[in-house]
Amino acid sequence: METEFIDWLRQRLPAHPQLILGPGDDAALVALRGRSECLVTVDLLMDQVDFRLSEVDPRRVGRKALAVNLSDMAAMAGQPLAAVIALALPRLGAGELAVQLYEGMLPLAEEHHLAIAGGDTNCWDVPLAISVTLLGEPGPRGPLRRGGAQPGDWIVVTGAFGGSILGRHFDFTPRVREAQLLHERYELHAGMDVSDGLSLDLSRLARESGCGAVLRLADVPVSPDAVRLATQQAAAGTPLDHALGDGEDFELILAVPPNDAARMIREQPLNVQLTAIGHFVPQPGLWRPSDDGGLAPLNPRGYVH
Amino acid sequence: METEFIDWLRQRLPAHPQLILGPGDDAALVALRGRSECLVTVDLLMDQVDFRLSEVDPRRVGRKALAVNLSDMAAMAGQPLAAVIALALPRLGAGELAVQLYEGMLPLAEEHHLAIAGGDTNCWDVPLAISVTLLGEPGPRGPLRRGGAQPGDWIVVTGAFGGSILGRHFDFTPRVREAQLLHERYELHAGMDVSDGLSLDLSRLARESGCGAVLRLADVPVSPDAVRLATQQAAAGTPLDHALGDGEDFELILAVPPNDAARMIREQPLNVQLTAIGHFVPQPGLWRPSDDGGLAPLNPRGYVH
Repeated sequence: METEFIDWLRQRLPAHPQLILGPGDDAALVALRGRSECLVTVDLLMDQVDFRLSEVDPRRVGRKALAVNLSDMAAMAGQPLAAVIALALPRLGAGELAVQLYEGMLPLAEEHHLAIAGGDTNCWDVPLAISVTLLGEPGPRGPLRRGGAQPGDWIVVTGAFGGSILGRHFDFTPRVREAQLLHERYELHAGMDVSDGLSLDLSRLARESGCGAVLRLADVPVSPDAVRLATQQAAAGTPLDHALGDGEDFELILAVPPNDAARMIREQPLNVQLTAIGHFVPQPGLWRPSDDGGLAPLNPRGYVH
Repeated sequence: METEFIDWLRQRLPAHPQLILGPGDDAALVALRGRSECLVTVDLLMDQVDFRLSEVDPRRVGRKALAVNLSDMAAMAGQPLAAVIALALPRLGAGELAVQLYEGMLPLAEEHHLAIAGGDTNCWDVPLAISVTLLGEPGPRGPLRRGGAQPGDWIVVTGAFGGSILGRHFDFTPRVREAQLLHERYELHAGMDVSDGLSLDLSRLARESGCGAVLRLADVPVSPDAVRLATQQAAAGTPLDHALGDGEDFELILAVPPNDAARMIREQPLNVQLTAIGHFVPQPGLWRPSDDGGLAPLNPRGYVH
């Protein structure tokens, strides 16, 4: 429901002179007096939906709750600054659980020079929910947005996709520094992070940009996890199916003008692989090259909230 | 558990150069490049704890979720700027419920010139939880804090206390403009809003200030709701008991130097009554005047998270 709901909300919300970017991107951008700008993003993680508390160390849950927000900040090429954390804790053992969640968050916060600015800690009789709100600052070239891809831009991604459910959805590296470095050294037209599935999120980036995307399926970097998962559960699809639709990869999708894209791919300036997997086209929608040299429609797959 | 937990957290968190005020106040204060400062606060409301969705119009729930944050901003005498909203919605009827919650929030947001900057909307199989994070800016005299009360300061409160459960906990007026006006016209040493109970929150303000508070029980403004509640449920205490411990009044407690306090009480510059109900003393703890002219301990009552 989230896409339709955001559409409703964007129509319903009045313009605000200090809201530079509102709902629809990975983070909003707010102008403060004194000409500073503040990026803000929120993510809510819930037991049984985003993790199973009965099966995992709560420290990994805490880490994930913060990391998904850092990934949103990476998607805007922003510098994380401060987080506030709201916890709805199951009553039994609430105090110990809260400490463990924070123990998972704090090392990641320190790694990114992030202040924990405050929180709200509550108990109730149902499962754990964690809401993290992250404040950050745009880099010197401003925030990287979803809506700037242009026909002809290459689609470049970090890392590999699929099968994150085997563990990577807890332990992934939010691409904060990677996004900053790329935004500094290359011209980037648009970017987002992959939370709901490579093909679905790519189709969203194209939609926000008012264009379409052509995905070269053979070039999609498939994670070893996707291969393992396809071997374990043949009925759930091929490794490529997992790469296209699993989600929670928290890698970056970037729209890069051809010259900079080619240079980026050649230079490989990151510790993680950069791969070109297609390009943007004027025709709205998601496509793959067809055998006759044209375009065939590709169905976006992924996790719909 | 919240007080102990915050104590643990404050010890555990490393200092951060851009975090001017961290956990423990009603909002945190973050410094941005370009010398702007940003107040940030979060509150999480949960079905069965803060409201009963089966018994109330969801619009009132939405309004409350935003209003409690506005009350935290009022406690810092800040100007609200932007909110982000995370929703964990019960799956059945999720879309309709989300719209109704926003319909309750939007008029209050517009009234306070507040931008809805973004959100995260999710479904799950358990009850509704709403987390609102509010960004704001401190006023020209800086943020009003909990920790500044000095012995001799008067305790001044807005409005009346107790019995908010009869409905006022949904429909209260967050004292945003009132706090700004008072902070501008009078010297205020400290302030907070009453969410957990007048006597408990006053004892917290005194503790943060490193002093104690003497409450003149006969001067505490008792809400008509507290009288009604005491009549309905005699076993639950007197109207004064309700005023001291019910919580969710969302009125302000202020520490005001005597001259300004006397002037404030005389001038009554607000649409809501200002009342002096005691003063701060060097001895830590909460007190009432005893019959022999000394001080007798008073047990703080209220809602402990």
